[in-house]
Amino acid sequence: MLPFALGIDIGGTRIKSASFDLASGRQLHSALLPTNDGTTAPDGSPAFAHTVRQLLAHHQDKLGTPASAIGISAPGIALADGSAISSNPGKLAGLEGLAWSDYLDHPQVLTLNDAHSALLGELWQGAAKGLSDVVLLTLGTGVGGAITIGGRLFKGHSGRAGHIGHMSLDPWGAPDICQAPGSLELSLGNATVAARSGGRFPCTHDLIHALRDGDPLAEFVWSRSIDSLGAAIVSLINLFDPQLILIGGGIGEAWPDIAPRLERYLDVYEWRPNPPHGVPIRRAELGEWAGCYGAAAAAARLLPA
Amino acid sequence: MLPFALGIDIGGTRIKSASFDLASGRQLHSALLPTNDGTTAPDGSPAFAHTVRQLLAHHQDKLGTPASAIGISAPGIALADGSAISSNPGKLAGLEGLAWSDYLDHPQVLTLNDAHSALLGELWQGAAKGLSDVVLLTLGTGVGGAITIGGRLFKGHSGRAGHIGHMSLDPWGAPDICQAPGSLELSLGNATVAARSGGRFPCTHDLIHALRDGDPLAEFVWSRSIDSLGAAIVSLINLFDPQLILIGGGIGEAWPDIAPRLERYLDVYEWRPNPPHGVPIRRAELGEWAGCYGAAAAAARLLPA
Repeated sequence: MLPFALGIDIGGTRIKSASFDLASGRQLHSALLPTNDGTTAPDGSPAFAHTVRQLLAHHQDKLGTPASAIGISAPGIALADGSAISSNPGKLAGLEGLAWSDYLDHPQVLTLNDAHSALLGELWQGAAKGLSDVVLLTLGTGVGGAITIGGRLFKGHSGRAGHIGHMSLDPWGAPDICQAPGSLELSLGNATVAARSGGRFPCTHDLIHALRDGDPLAEFVWSRSIDSLGAAIVSLINLFDPQLILIGGGIGEAWPDIAPRLERYLDVYEWRPNPPHGVPIRRAELGEWAGCYGAAAAAARLLPA
Repeated sequence: MLPFALGIDIGGTRIKSASFDLASGRQLHSALLPTNDGTTAPDGSPAFAHTVRQLLAHHQDKLGTPASAIGISAPGIALADGSAISSNPGKLAGLEGLAWSDYLDHPQVLTLNDAHSALLGELWQGAAKGLSDVVLLTLGTGVGGAITIGGRLFKGHSGRAGHIGHMSLDPWGAPDICQAPGSLELSLGNATVAARSGGRFPCTHDLIHALRDGDPLAEFVWSRSIDSLGAAIVSLINLFDPQLILIGGGIGEAWPDIAPRLERYLDVYEWRPNPPHGVPIRRAELGEWAGCYGAAAAAARLLPA
């Protein structure tokens, strides 16, 4: 019957939830349900919102006590006061403007961008524990990211800072969904694997499988992608001067196929005023649960958000 | 006999100095002398340091009162306490580690990186007056920059944040002086004009002159350079989400040849969640005196540095 914080991470296909002991940071219980994006619950609210309500009830039943704080992690840009996602150009109709504190009838609810909550999770209990100046890249369908400066999330003047996937690596490249020409996202995100491989590989998983079998096209495509990631990291180091760079997201699971290539690239192109050590680059530790960790910790005010 | 702050900006060829009324920010008097880099003063100190001492005495004589604060603006990375430049990979031997407060025998001296002081100057009395989140690009021999977040200079974890010139625009490009591949500096800095034009133009000044005469090669070279600047600005907007982007430095004087091309580029490639307005891009206003303004204001603690 200890007080617990709940983190809920709304993704395109699944909604993850995890409850945490506030004193130790230990995960107490977890549950996930399908998002069922685009459908409506019997009460007329979007199915994903209703599912969040169910997950809250489930954790409270399981632990026999109300949640002391609830963090909602979701795609899009969160309002500065954390009450809602104000802008989300993707799916999840009904997410924009949904006031979660009212909807869940709970006084302490905080809404965060999903990459932001993932980085806060890594700072709280993961690979960036105890650090203050960290850059996270999330490699998935697209490429997202989050940045902390002095232990606080860097949000910029209007809340859209840290859109790492929309850095340009080619001034004359095709525009991406945010118009950025030849962006990191286009060079690396899962959504462009087919285009990058002349249609050979439908997704990064298949590309990596072929790479491990010694397929020459896979080798060529993957090398170019990791070079692009390397160039973006060079820029991020020279712009943000972080203590640590973290790689997360689904493609991050191909870490053995990323790390040695990336290291070779950075050995050549990274600015290292104090040789031979560059900025450490590590794989995120909390995997797909990072967002739940960070949302719960931020909602419980264990970390600034 | 009003109290005044002195700003001194040490450049590769000239040392500029200007004194300012602390209440109004008005410039009272200015003077400049050659840097004479590489030579030594009769007292054994580097000539440039001795010249700084002379300029201080000159302002104090002229205004009939001691300076209440002295700001030193110089290339390189300043120590966190502002006592000295700790690292400067370029010329000006003797600058690294020179403790200016001792050398000038004055209790209130602050040392700043020259791009940092230029941005603070623009915030105090120039094009960014009253703003808090600003990115400055200085276009000259190389490409430098400075960034403020919430009204404070952004320095990063080890003091080297904001090296905007060393953003990569081509993962497979040649490395620049900081190893960054295909960097903005290589695409735009004065040092590479000859290389970019097959030897036709020795400097940006000649390139711009030919451009205005309708020279086709000049048009081609300059268009590529401004496209590269545009792509870097797209990335900076998506990463830093500033209120304003300022263009300074000597090449900034070609503003009529920059602005319309840059605007066309950004109309296509800038992410504008609230159309039709992009982030405003303006020319810096204080010209070559910006560093003196910012160094004086920061030393007098009128701005955080």
